[in-house]
Amino acid sequence: MKYKRSQRLVDMTQYLLQHPYQLTTLSDFVQRYQTAKSSVSEDVAIIKEQFKQSKLGCIETTAGASGGVRYIPQISKEQAKAAIQKMCQDLNQADRLLPGGYFYLTDVLGDPKYLRLIGQVIASHFAKQEVDAIMTVATKGVPLAQMVSLYLNVPFVIVRRDSKVTEGSTVSINYATKGNPRVEKMELTKSSLPEHSKVILVDDFMNGGGTISGMLAMLKEFKSECVGVSVLCEVASSDRHVECDYYSLMSLTKNADSTAIVDLQPGTMFA
Amino acid sequence: MKYKRSQRLVDMTQYLLQHPYQLTTLSDFVQRYQTAKSSVSEDVAIIKEQFKQSKLGCIETTAGASGGVRYIPQISKEQAKAAIQKMCQDLNQADRLLPGGYFYLTDVLGDPKYLRLIGQVIASHFAKQEVDAIMTVATKGVPLAQMVSLYLNVPFVIVRRDSKVTEGSTVSINYATKGNPRVEKMELTKSSLPEHSKVILVDDFMNGGGTISGMLAMLKEFKSECVGVSVLCEVASSDRHVECDYYSLMSLTKNADSTAIVDLQPGTMFA
Repeated sequence: MKYKRSQRLVDMTQYLLQHPYQLTTLSDFVQRYQTAKSSVSEDVAIIKEQFKQSKLGCIETTAGASGGVRYIPQISKEQAKAAIQKMCQDLNQADRLLPGGYFYLTDVLGDPKYLRLIGQVIASHFAKQEVDAIMTVATKGVPLAQMVSLYLNVPFVIVRRDSKVTEGSTVSINYATKGNPRVEKMELTKSSLPEHSKVILVDDFMNGGGTISGMLAMLKEFKSECVGVSVLCEVASSDRHVECDYYSLMSLTKNADSTAIVDLQPGTMFA
Repeated sequence: MKYKRSQRLVDMTQYLLQHPYQLTTLSDFVQRYQTAKSSVSEDVAIIKEQFKQSKLGCIETTAGASGGVRYIPQISKEQAKAAIQKMCQDLNQADRLLPGGYFYLTDVLGDPKYLRLIGQVIASHFAKQEVDAIMTVATKGVPLAQMVSLYLNVPFVIVRRDSKVTEGSTVSINYATKGNPRVEKMELTKSSLPEHSKVILVDDFMNGGGTISGMLAMLKEFKSECVGVSVLCEVASSDRHVECDYYSLMSLTKNADSTAIVDLQPGTMFA
């Protein structure tokens, strides 16, 4: 069947949104819509312009035989900062502070509205990066890693503190937690990450930075490389030592005995 | 600024896709596009027709003062079955059988392509249902619950076998695993699920059905109601007793000593 322009625009918009980072040739669209290449090119130009205006990210077009169209989800730094600022205001509630200085984020990590935002913000930050996989630690990092995975269209892998019998053989490492020093173990299923992968690390909360250090050690076991680190919320601290740059979406300042929030602000990603 | 029809179609398509199940009034669109209500109505009609043709689901329009537009993601039974059939073929590999009769699905649960499909299939199955939340058990159920949550636009909650100090007070229950009988514990953060919620249970793998029974018991503690159960893969079995209907996407038949796959077929959801 033949598609009108209006129909093509609706269908192509949904197609591109659902296939981020995936190259589709103009010929694929020509075939899909049974129309001339010139019409498809015009469609793409309209969508490209509108995505820019609606601040959804970038439609990349490449010419030549292997050329085509791909959608890079990307929101602007300003947009991201404003949305995270709003989120900080929403979450700045005294009863979110838990015993031991932790911060209650469980509801955020199960809320599709927040998750879409967080995924877009982290994926936008690493949009120019070549990435093969996202890595996180179970359980609360999983929703974040998954959102970044959806927007960057690469798989994610889950490092676990307790491996189950249902996963096949694993690689395990020991790492030192900071702040409250002790040695812990983490494990990753052997087959889940190919060697020489370029990996982004994602986690929900950063206190001493031990979990991120553990994941960096795990990457070494897989001969893989860390190309970025992002955490949803870090405890503001000047004496933390992490072996790489990391970008937090929110930065939490507590009073000395961790009983009150002094400040919750957009994190180092927006500095 | 004023939008042309082509621009409105692109922007409205992305807006609806990113706000499933959310009612938007025509007036909101009139304001967004600074155009006449009649034009917006025509735009909606075009998108509605094209979503139907592209099999993306349904654009519901309701008239009257509180009326508006909302997008219900829904793929057809035939489309879903064909895609899951293809997935079964891809996964029918002898080396996916693990010691103890488990089935390796870890890669599937970290692959955005499979996750989008699985989320769409489960969300489509429960599209007519009134749902307040999705519930799953850590860790491997999380990616599935999250996808269903994104498509149904309701929060998801994670039941854990080991609660962490970082979550606040929890409710814990004991439940009996089946097959290999022993008593286990599961816990859910108290604040994560309001009482009297209507909940869909999601899990990755069903053997004896003990985990689902555990979640049903947990729902009782929260005075909440199960309105649907879906698992990615069940072991084909005639002598399983679960206290409610459940729908599997895949059904796995193994030989007597669990060393070979006899069959991997679309599950009871498609029966």
